[in-house]
Amino acid sequence: MQNYLEKTESCILRHLEQNHVSDTILKSSSYSIEAGGKRFRPYLLFSTLSALGHDPLKGVQTAAAIEMIHTYSLIHDDLPAMDDDDYRRGRLTNHKVYGEAAAILAGDTLLTESFSIVAADVSLPAEKRIALVSQIASKSGFNGMIGGQMLDIEAEGQEISLSELENIHQYKTGKLIVLPVQCACIIADVSGDVTRQLVNFAEKLGILFQIRDDILDVEGDIAITGKSAGSDEKNNKTTYVSTYGLKGAHEQLEKLVENAEFILNGLAEEIETKELHSVLQRFAVRNQ
Amino acid sequence: MQNYLEKTESCILRHLEQNHVSDTILKSSSYSIEAGGKRFRPYLLFSTLSALGHDPLKGVQTAAAIEMIHTYSLIHDDLPAMDDDDYRRGRLTNHKVYGEAAAILAGDTLLTESFSIVAADVSLPAEKRIALVSQIASKSGFNGMIGGQMLDIEAEGQEISLSELENIHQYKTGKLIVLPVQCACIIADVSGDVTRQLVNFAEKLGILFQIRDDILDVEGDIAITGKSAGSDEKNNKTTYVSTYGLKGAHEQLEKLVENAEFILNGLAEEIETKELHSVLQRFAVRNQ
Repeated sequence: MQNYLEKTESCILRHLEQNHVSDTILKSSSYSIEAGGKRFRPYLLFSTLSALGHDPLKGVQTAAAIEMIHTYSLIHDDLPAMDDDDYRRGRLTNHKVYGEAAAILAGDTLLTESFSIVAADVSLPAEKRIALVSQIASKSGFNGMIGGQMLDIEAEGQEISLSELENIHQYKTGKLIVLPVQCACIIADVSGDVTRQLVNFAEKLGILFQIRDDILDVEGDIAITGKSAGSDEKNNKTTYVSTYGLKGAHEQLEKLVENAEFILNGLAEEIETKELHSVLQRFAVRNQ
Repeated sequence: MQNYLEKTESCILRHLEQNHVSDTILKSSSYSIEAGGKRFRPYLLFSTLSALGHDPLKGVQTAAAIEMIHTYSLIHDDLPAMDDDDYRRGRLTNHKVYGEAAAILAGDTLLTESFSIVAADVSLPAEKRIALVSQIASKSGFNGMIGGQMLDIEAEGQEISLSELENIHQYKTGKLIVLPVQCACIIADVSGDVTRQLVNFAEKLGILFQIRDDILDVEGDIAITGKSAGSDEKNNKTTYVSTYGLKGAHEQLEKLVENAEFILNGLAEEIETKELHSVLQRFAVRNQ
């Protein structure tokens, strides 16, 4: 797996180096890619391909595109006009280093170039590439991540219900966790039924990802998470922890892990779910 | 032509209305599309298709995508961290009406959804759609418009030479004027030779577009341009007018029109250049 993740990062950085117009754009967009991060979405894509008996190498360019979309969203999200964050992954945020204009343009670059990378993936037929472009745009667009970010911003300082909160998460983070699974299904050319089951699994992952995030905001170690703890409580945010308490949130997480295991165990026999079980564990116990 | 332009606008607005997550995103992105503008890029795409004897209707979704890219770039460009403009096309800029966060996300939306629209254009085979995605991303990405915007921002307050200025324009505005011509050539499936000649024509259009822009900044009527005149001089910007004087800039413009006419007249006989001659005139004498 590590090998595929390294190939993904070097695919992105090599693509960015093809920039011959602006050094600043190269530096600022590479900075946020090189900041690392968990690479959960590429990991999920490769694990799904491997479960489907398909060569994970065929997913490198798509994984790169998805990671670029994720990274652009963090850069724009951290801007003063949005969440106004100074640190991300333990380093200064993009705009703190390169200024706001370069950060906005670095985000625009990563978003735009993600489509270049998928379009240029000649290892896949044009039909699959166009299906990937379509999925990436729809999961990250107004009915996906961007829509969720807008809802999240509008909910700030408001009292919201847990179902409203879940709706925000479903779009803001959930869609981009479903995306790599859906893309793997396109690349591996599997049936609609298998796709639906795997998407269902990914939706559970999305929710437990968020619950874990809320738990980490209370229990997390800043040296590992790279984020200051307790910011949700300080900002009076509705979270799984504020709704269920810390113990309750852990219980919810456990329940979701069981649900997700159940979906994996119900998949057809020829699907080798070992890697997906391990993704699930990784999502459930992550410390950053 | 007017009919195709109307179809382009309604294609965009219909697509935006498919948003079911955030009303704010719908309103803010539609606001900037409905602000109108010259629609030069769609006009150029339809004129090229018509010159090539191809049904302009086949270009509506691509024209919509290009206009969305153009509009997103204006929204981000107007942000306080970039050009900090309060008015555009005689109306308040997006962030002045919806706030910065919504404006950033409206820009991200238009950029992302432009790829959705092209990917969903089932009137074209997948190979053409993927070639269009690739062209749109490359002309608007780091080796295109975004690269040029970064150069432009970095040149602010600097003394730059005319050749540096031309380099900025080539990327910042030129690439997005070449784009519709290149896309029309993909849709109409013409030879590399014809594409090269038409791209050459579009490159001249890009430069004369910019010269006209610089002239309008001096001679323009705010009631028509929607922009306050004299801002280049006030900001001490290098322009064609500051370099050649007003008369000299007009002469440069005339020379370019002659060059562009020459290219059109050299095209194969079966290419019906009437519409392209009229685009050229429109670019050369535009008042807004």
